[in-house]
Amino acid sequence: MVRITDIFEKKHSLLITNVEADGKIVDIFIDETGTIAGLGEDKRVKHKGEAEFIIDGDRAIALPGLVNTHTHAAMSLLRGYADDMVLQDWLTQKIWPLEAHLTGNDVYLGTRLACLEMIRSGTTAFNDMYFFMDEAARAVDESGMRAVLSYGFIDLFNSDKREIECKATENLIARVRRMKNPRIKASVGPHTIYTVSKEGLIWCAEFAKEQKIAIHIHLSETEKEVQDCITRYGMRPSAFLDTCGILAPRTMAAHCCWLDEAECTLLKKRGVSVSHNPASNMKLATHRAMPYPWLSAAGVNVCLGTDGCASNNSLDLFAEMKIAALLQKFYWNNPTLLPAQDALAMATAHGTEALGFGPGRLTVGAAADIVLVNTHRVCNTPLHNATSNLVYSCNGGAVEATICDGKVLMLEGEIPGEAVIRESAALAAQELVCRAQNG
Amino acid sequence: MVRITDIFEKKHSLLITNVEADGKIVDIFIDETGTIAGLGEDKRVKHKGEAEFIIDGDRAIALPGLVNTHTHAAMSLLRGYADDMVLQDWLTQKIWPLEAHLTGNDVYLGTRLACLEMIRSGTTAFNDMYFFMDEAARAVDESGMRAVLSYGFIDLFNSDKREIECKATENLIARVRRMKNPRIKASVGPHTIYTVSKEGLIWCAEFAKEQKIAIHIHLSETEKEVQDCITRYGMRPSAFLDTCGILAPRTMAAHCCWLDEAECTLLKKRGVSVSHNPASNMKLATHRAMPYPWLSAAGVNVCLGTDGCASNNSLDLFAEMKIAALLQKFYWNNPTLLPAQDALAMATAHGTEALGFGPGRLTVGAAADIVLVNTHRVCNTPLHNATSNLVYSCNGGAVEATICDGKVLMLEGEIPGEAVIRESAALAAQELVCRAQNG
Repeated sequence: MVRITDIFEKKHSLLITNVEADGKIVDIFIDETGTIAGLGEDKRVKHKGEAEFIIDGDRAIALPGLVNTHTHAAMSLLRGYADDMVLQDWLTQKIWPLEAHLTGNDVYLGTRLACLEMIRSGTTAFNDMYFFMDEAARAVDESGMRAVLSYGFIDLFNSDKREIECKATENLIARVRRMKNPRIKASVGPHTIYTVSKEGLIWCAEFAKEQKIAIHIHLSETEKEVQDCITRYGMRPSAFLDTCGILAPRTMAAHCCWLDEAECTLLKKRGVSVSHNPASNMKLATHRAMPYPWLSAAGVNVCLGTDGCASNNSLDLFAEMKIAALLQKFYWNNPTLLPAQDALAMATAHGTEALGFGPGRLTVGAAADIVLVNTHRVCNTPLHNATSNLVYSCNGGAVEATICDGKVLMLEGEIPGEAVIRESAALAAQELVCRAQNG
Repeated sequence: MVRITDIFEKKHSLLITNVEADGKIVDIFIDETGTIAGLGEDKRVKHKGEAEFIIDGDRAIALPGLVNTHTHAAMSLLRGYADDMVLQDWLTQKIWPLEAHLTGNDVYLGTRLACLEMIRSGTTAFNDMYFFMDEAARAVDESGMRAVLSYGFIDLFNSDKREIECKATENLIARVRRMKNPRIKASVGPHTIYTVSKEGLIWCAEFAKEQKIAIHIHLSETEKEVQDCITRYGMRPSAFLDTCGILAPRTMAAHCCWLDEAECTLLKKRGVSVSHNPASNMKLATHRAMPYPWLSAAGVNVCLGTDGCASNNSLDLFAEMKIAALLQKFYWNNPTLLPAQDALAMATAHGTEALGFGPGRLTVGAAADIVLVNTHRVCNTPLHNATSNLVYSCNGGAVEATICDGKVLMLEGEIPGEAVIRESAALAAQELVCRAQNG
């Protein structure tokens, strides 16, 4: 029996014809290593014989894959479980009691579900922080996406707990190294300055430096965090983190709503990247938008993230680009702030660069992380300006194809195995709530 | 030759089985007049023989059709034409020069495109203000949607121009009356207090009262409007409009960002409805969110709208519900404000009630304006809380079927004639820009 090769099965050499990239109609040739080996107006003729598969781009817009620089992927199981509450009640009455019953398998299934949502909406890489992260790594491996995974290090100022967290962090790094999957990296994830002791933060900083890996941390999400830090340490959060060595070129600081101008300058000086999470910040009422005007003036690399599904409740970076562009204009009272092209760069090149996954641009020699957005949709009609439509008009539903590292993860809206992932995750979520209700 | 009856062709009696409505799995029977004639757990057996078509709801969520209470539908042709600009530059350098070249056919095609977008994202009725409104009426008639149409009355404080605007308003009312289409109503559309003279506003108020029709107006969108009103008339905008007789039970006031508390009380006293347009307000940096806490405390009927496509750039009310719920929480610093169920009510029952198109609830005797949202989607996985998912997680792309007045406008994502509408509108938009560029 002849086995028909499935485009989803493994990496193949691919020729994508007739797509719009950076304003030109081009063809893109991806070689069997997953690298963009040809891009231009004449590539169809040149590479037709070489490609195992030809994808008719049908004048789609080709984009580099979007990058979600701050999320807690497995929290997709908690989507809609609790909303419209005060942060402290939400955490103590709803989220934490449920999380206490989470299993490794839940994290695996929740991460699979999150990957499905991200692939469907054109995201090819993400920066994650949660627990049972070896299970998250397994999910990412199977999904075909890229991720940087951190164990959420929370010592609650207790030295015994600190030992456990150090060990868990070390274990994750070792585990991910053993996978030898270039799409998956581990990082160190000190949760926040109010859940991790100074000793814990210093350990994280030193360990990350020694291992040459990234740091992923929440920074200045709320005004209370800033006030408490000044009370406890006599300085603002960024200055305090700097004394611990946390601010480094591979550090991703999420939220950053309450930074002052001096902190923006300090982050730039240390090479820190910032992840803007506008939907989560608005939903939880941080009451201040990340100071993009100061961060961009300082030259900080500002990226985009959705935060976890429990506080968003979506992982669609197209929607997030729009909310970011709207929130910055509204809060900082300037309709010219964060124009569409900058919002798109936040969601693509800035994120890829921060996570160390290549240039985040469609260019020969880069890994083929490519998304095709359908132009035969209302959201792309008319097509006066593709970038404007991508940011302000389309959502992730306009994505037709998602390719990561040269492997096709979605084509014509089809993702292999989708129904099983959705149904298993739905069941796991239901059972989790039952376990929590039964104590 | 036997002609196979097309479900899209005309109104048919319909049985929708196995849908979730208000938390229960039910069947819905729609009779041949387009009225919900049965709704409950036993309707399948009872009405199976009566229905010309049976739609397997497949556990979809059934909602009343969404209602867009403030838009300029034909501006869909301007989607992405100009963004990220200061309001005055945007209007004078981009929007107005282009609009000067708009034809009636452009308005027809732009409105068809807007209707397509709204049907696709689950909206069944809208409140429109623009020009060439007889062409808009033709588009709405063909689309199968409901609309209240107003001619944008702008006299620029000039009495000759005022005569023209009065005549245009009278003509539209007469024209719409002659159509005898119960889905389409005309209203009076005094544009704003800074584009219409006091005499013009008084004429609009009296004409609307005499004709027993609604008023559609922009109110307190910007701080400048409030300051200029105080300078010119010695009072705030709502108080001034009240002296003109504009504030009445059929009046829809759009934006309302800069109301003070006394104005909220006044609007309630006069029975005015308010249309919240959060995406547009954020994009154009109004810098203040509509005071939902004061409006809801006063008991004002608050509805939802997208504004025109040039300042949003989408007509998806699912996305708008989320942005509304996020913006209110963020701006008014309260994560419990505008919870999901209230955002959904804003987009459904409140809007329907304001436009006089029935109860806006799925109930026996109501017109069948029904939307089916697919639950086999990532955005509805897991399904801890359907309302939360609808507001915070789904976008309009999750809508599978849209029924208005008992007629199926979209089924399984198919809308008859979609490609032709998209392509004609795209061409018209391109030609419009060419005409504008050639002077």
